[in-house]
Amino acid sequence: MRIVIVNPNTTASMTAKIGAAAQSVAGAGTEVIAVNPPDGPVSIEGYVDEAYSVPGLLAEIRRQPADAYIIACFDDTGLEAARCVTESPVIGIGEAAFHIASLLAGKFSVITTLSRSIPAIEHNLVKYGLDRRCAKVRAAEVPVLELEDPTSDAATRIATEIEQAKAADRCEAIVLGCAGMADLAASLSRTHGLPVIDGVAAAVELAESVVALGLKTSRLGGYAPPRAKPYTGRFAREAP
Amino acid sequence: MRIVIVNPNTTASMTAKIGAAAQSVAGAGTEVIAVNPPDGPVSIEGYVDEAYSVPGLLAEIRRQPADAYIIACFDDTGLEAARCVTESPVIGIGEAAFHIASLLAGKFSVITTLSRSIPAIEHNLVKYGLDRRCAKVRAAEVPVLELEDPTSDAATRIATEIEQAKAADRCEAIVLGCAGMADLAASLSRTHGLPVIDGVAAAVELAESVVALGLKTSRLGGYAPPRAKPYTGRFAREAP
Amino acid sequence: MRIVIVNPNTTASMTAKIGAAAQSVAGAGTEVIAVNPPDGPVSIEGYVDEAYSVPGLLAEIRRQPADAYIIACFDDTGLEAARCVTESPVIGIGEAAFHIASLLAGKFSVITTLSRSIPAIEHNLVKYGLDRRCAKVRAAEVPVLELEDPTSDAATRIATEIEQAKAADRCEAIVLGCAGMADLAASLSRTHGLPVIDGVAAAVELAESVVALGLKTSRLGGYAPPRAKPYTGRFAREAP
Amino acid sequence: MRIVIVNPNTTASMTAKIGAAAQSVAGAGTEVIAVNPPDGPVSIEGYVDEAYSVPGLLAEIRRQPADAYIIACFDDTGLEAARCVTESPVIGIGEAAFHIASLLAGKFSVITTLSRSIPAIEHNLVKYGLDRRCAKVRAAEVPVLELEDPTSDAATRIATEIEQAKAADRCEAIVLGCAGMADLAASLSRTHGLPVIDGVAAAVELAESVVALGLKTSRLGGYAPPRAKPYTGRFAREAP
Amino acid sequence: MRIVIVNPNTTASMTAKIGAAAQSVAGAGTEVIAVNPPDGPVSIEGYVDEAYSVPGLLAEIRRQPADAYIIACFDDTGLEAARCVTESPVIGIGEAAFHIASLLAGKFSVITTLSRSIPAIEHNLVKYGLDRRCAKVRAAEVPVLELEDPTSDAATRIATEIEQAKAADRCEAIVLGCAGMADLAASLSRTHGLPVIDGVAAAVELAESVVALGLKTSRLGGYAPPRAKPYTGRFAREAP
Amino acid sequence: MRIVIVNPNTTASMTAKIGAAAQSVAGAGTEVIAVNPPDGPVSIEGYVDEAYSVPGLLAEIRRQPADAYIIACFDDTGLEAARCVTESPVIGIGEAAFHIASLLAGKFSVITTLSRSIPAIEHNLVKYGLDRRCAKVRAAEVPVLELEDPTSDAATRIATEIEQAKAADRCEAIVLGCAGMADLAASLSRTHGLPVIDGVAAAVELAESVVALGLKTSRLGGYAPPRAKPYTGRFAREAP
Repeated sequence: MRIVIVNPNTTASMTAKIGAAAQSVAGAGTEVIAVNPPDGPVSIEGYVDEAYSVPGLLAEIRRQPADAYIIACFDDTGLEAARCVTESPVIGIGEAAFHIASLLAGKFSVITTLSRSIPAIEHNLVKYGLDRRCAKVRAAEVPVLELEDPTSDAATRIATEIEQAKAADRCEAIVLGCAGMADLAASLSRTHGLPVIDGVAAAVELAESVVALGLKTSRLGGYAPPRAKPYTGRFAREAP
Repeated sequence: MRIVIVNPNTTASMTAKIGAAAQSVAGAGTEVIAVNPPDGPVSIEGYVDEAYSVPGLLAEIRRQPADAYIIACFDDTGLEAARCVTESPVIGIGEAAFHIASLLAGKFSVITTLSRSIPAIEHNLVKYGLDRRCAKVRAAEVPVLELEDPTSDAATRIATEIEQAKAADRCEAIVLGCAGMADLAASLSRTHGLPVIDGVAAAVELAESVVALGLKTSRLGGYAPPRAKPYTGRFAREAP
Repeated sequence: MRIVIVNPNTTASMTAKIGAAAQSVAGAGTEVIAVNPPDGPVSIEGYVDEAYSVPGLLAEIRRQPADAYIIACFDDTGLEAARCVTESPVIGIGEAAFHIASLLAGKFSVITTLSRSIPAIEHNLVKYGLDRRCAKVRAAEVPVLELEDPTSDAATRIATEIEQAKAADRCEAIVLGCAGMADLAASLSRTHGLPVIDGVAAAVELAESVVALGLKTSRLGGYAPPRAKPYTGRFAREAP
Repeated sequence: MRIVIVNPNTTASMTAKIGAAAQSVAGAGTEVIAVNPPDGPVSIEGYVDEAYSVPGLLAEIRRQPADAYIIACFDDTGLEAARCVTESPVIGIGEAAFHIASLLAGKFSVITTLSRSIPAIEHNLVKYGLDRRCAKVRAAEVPVLELEDPTSDAATRIATEIEQAKAADRCEAIVLGCAGMADLAASLSRTHGLPVIDGVAAAVELAESVVALGLKTSRLGGYAPPRAKPYTGRFAREAP
Repeated sequence: MRIVIVNPNTTASMTAKIGAAAQSVAGAGTEVIAVNPPDGPVSIEGYVDEAYSVPGLLAEIRRQPADAYIIACFDDTGLEAARCVTESPVIGIGEAAFHIASLLAGKFSVITTLSRSIPAIEHNLVKYGLDRRCAKVRAAEVPVLELEDPTSDAATRIATEIEQAKAADRCEAIVLGCAGMADLAASLSRTHGLPVIDGVAAAVELAESVVALGLKTSRLGGYAPPRAKPYTGRFAREAP
Repeated sequence: MRIVIVNPNTTASMTAKIGAAAQSVAGAGTEVIAVNPPDGPVSIEGYVDEAYSVPGLLAEIRRQPADAYIIACFDDTGLEAARCVTESPVIGIGEAAFHIASLLAGKFSVITTLSRSIPAIEHNLVKYGLDRRCAKVRAAEVPVLELEDPTSDAATRIATEIEQAKAADRCEAIVLGCAGMADLAASLSRTHGLPVIDGVAAAVELAESVVALGLKTSRLGGYAPPRAKPYTGRFAREAP
């Protein structure tokens, strides 16, 4: 099975870290290809960065044949559009983490990077229906690329936020709200005594699951393939 | 007052029609500039077209100073990102129509173009909170550009759908779910005996309203200005 | 265009202040008539005051021809009944503020006068669907008529509550929850660095908007004109 | 125990019928006093009639000492205001029927008189939280006073609507949506083979229940006693 | 009228206390029989205890003819199953307390025994639709059987939690979340100045109410009588 | 990895079919043990059957060590209690199907066996938050054990219901609402042209996923291990 995991930002070191995290949980027969587009923001922190990452993301999905795709941004950037351009299942790491957390705990809290990302995550939770399972979305106020910096105190700030979530939110599990936190889940879980879910690993498992089930994205409704039509200007060659 | 209305698709004839509709309801002191980006799909019918229209949309907003902006696609394509790149208020024609309808009727039904567009509209209604006011989102199964074709039977199909909505949905008003239907609202309202709301006109009024109130988009939370950072590849020059 | 703004309480000085606030934002061609009924409570603070203000409110609406009406009590007292007695649009200042705030911010908090008014406002938010957009309804514990008293510390208490809302509610805008706060919005917005919405001004803009759009209240469903029937006793002459 | 049941419309024959229905289910030690105000509409069919019935309703409650009050209009007209003017519990027949139905069935449908009354009932269900238990609110299109006319075919139309509700709504019980239907419940239940709940009887039982429990309406929050203040004009003597 | 109240745990002293509390509020013509099954947990504190109490509970209901049944565990353990095995109404003390509180207050908070019981109560509130009326579910961290111990400080801890609920939840009434607290309601209500509702007493009143109304549980939908079929092993004789 | 799948009814042929379906999708290194309790109903069709199946289900889980457990009844019978008696993850086939369907389609409809099972499934969807993703729960009116009978027309009735769901519900995927339908999913998906999800296969994949992720059920909140206490009578030896 071949899974392509797309980091929709253009920071190759983060792509490598995500790829390693993904491969480490993948099954024996699963090949994980981690890619990022050449075009777009070096990190995704808010709606504007999201918008500029989607054309590159869709191009990677179209370029890379795969049994399933993973979008490795916690905002599930471009998820609906991606589902329209391929029959193969597409999993967002945000939704993956929410679904897995829902199997292990009544309510979970999310710890993301920056406050500005909270509304987009809350919108996704409402869209997925899983806002009812989420106690609170919190921000550790750690910029995304600081997670790549071994000298940063990001881990401490995340740990502090987890303790506050346990005390104040009545949450039973933690979802880590950024692909760049993928390497922290196991040790945080041990330290804080509750399930801590990383979306990258969760998405690999769910992607393998839907492929093993022989299921494809529905072609009815919103995920129907795009209608053939001209695109103009710099997107002309990306027309459906 | 200067209002820039951006048609996020690249069909100039539709932009002209939208601009005329907008100017016709604007106040005496309001200058309406209707533009469309050079890059992107010729019509927006689903998530993929949406994704490729946003970079062009944001470029138009950055290029054109204005007291307020209107996004003239009923999906409110790129609305959140647009709100981050300018302090001036940004109004989507979808949200505008929903808010105006809520002032005139307990419940409204939406008539959009194609079924594939229904889920995105439903998601927006949930995000805005106004799903509770919407009886049903319906599709007349009319492609967007057919609305530009005077020989099409699009108007008949829309009228049929309105009658079905009145009979089956217990709706008290109709929202027209495409910028290309802007010229139909008044006659449909007379014919069917209930308020029929066009989002383009509604958005012009709401844009004028927020400007007159001296209000700007909040810079707290999700609409904070984008963080300065490099963008790579073909989007390098569009970095915040 | 002629807009009649009805202060449903009987305090003429408050009516004058509301009228001045309304006229100051109205367009050049808009005549604003501010009235209050002769019968009823001197201020509206809870369900009983509301109940006794509605007959007078309806009488004013029937007596005064207008292109649109505004109900200048934040509880939107009598709004549904008012919509039944006239085809002209009727806008409540509460709903107006909520809709305008929703165009500028993801979530807003409301600062009203007294705690006893919070449940009615929360009910309205649920009825309108906009509870999902409201972070919290707060009370500054300022009686309505104290807002008319220049020596009161009402402004300070409101400012304190705004700061608490910013810190604790993750709100991105503030809605002022009383017609008597109409004169405070602009300076509070500057001081606290977020949009502060006054319902009186918001309602004037929305009333002008729906009139400019040529729209009337729906006659289907709950806002159908009242059925002709006898009323007895002191209300005999107010029968539909 | 003394229960005052107020028919908020001014039709004495309907008050008598309601009183008889109420007394017939009341306990041995319960005295039921059925009254109606002298002022207001002869029937309540929509928001305007509601508005003009509340001052008379409140006057009756203040005039008549009681251990508990019942408001015998299915819209629960003036319920919140009534709870403020007396410590004794006040029960609306609409809420009473919904609560009792929720003890006997997963979901219920409501059969009311006229379509125009549906939105107010739906708002109440949302306010009470019991919209989740209601499959559908239906109208038999029977004016209220036609229920007083023994030659009308109202009973047939209600029966037809119940059969449609059973077939289409997956409802497990029926709530009769008008005080004037109080005498029909038992026979409809036998005929249609499911619980049919009349709000008048339900309210009598719930009023007796809360009195037996020694409970009073909360004085905190929205039901706090009205603040002392002047009322002007024809309501001057009804000031709190 | 004969009401059987089943304490689904096997602690006879608690059954006796519940029975006395129930009889004390019952009407003159009501015989209250308090029973508990011989099989199962000595107290119900969480999902596992619930599961093992239901077969005994159902056996008691089948064994004891009654006009109505009450399930005297605040989790409403086995309520749906119980409604299938008898036509007579079955009332849970949890739902009873929520419904009665909703007649007296806009919002209530619940004080239960242990944190582990909170999620089950929250699920019930969502299922009943009354989560919208509940400000917060709180735990006093008092094990169930400690309520039977006169030397415990349980009452103090409950009082403390009520004061916190008043200060922080904006609640207008308190629901006591355990059958073992039945004897505390009246004095807590006096001390804390708001309605305090005990589910045992509430359920007796509601059981009497539905019997007086001549109503039975619906046989349509989920409460249909169980289909005849073999049960195997130790439950063979309990097959429907 | 060792997965124990418990069929909570006592029909061994159905257990065998479920076991075969589960093993057929399990990974190479996964051993699937399918068991059923000796005690309880031969099929689960409604709340009473559910109640009598849980003690046997819990006993099987305690008796059989495993890396993960699956409850093979679409009602997710006993799921919460099961999560308390083991640290290993426990997956219900109902929730599994809902979560997998949510990754492939905007909205799904459920086709279950009998109408009486619909309310329990709807309650679960609300509890999980995924009611927002479910277009409708439908019943093919096929008793569970008829699915074991090769001469029955069950498959035809299910196919008919799927076509009605596609036409009327705007659903984009189908969830099969009974473990006994596990063998039908693939062919129904091909025939009807949309994803058809079987909960047994979905649960196997999710169980493998959470085990591969190294995650356990949270011990905080509702899934805390049961408190040690006596159980009496026939359940004495099953005390925690």
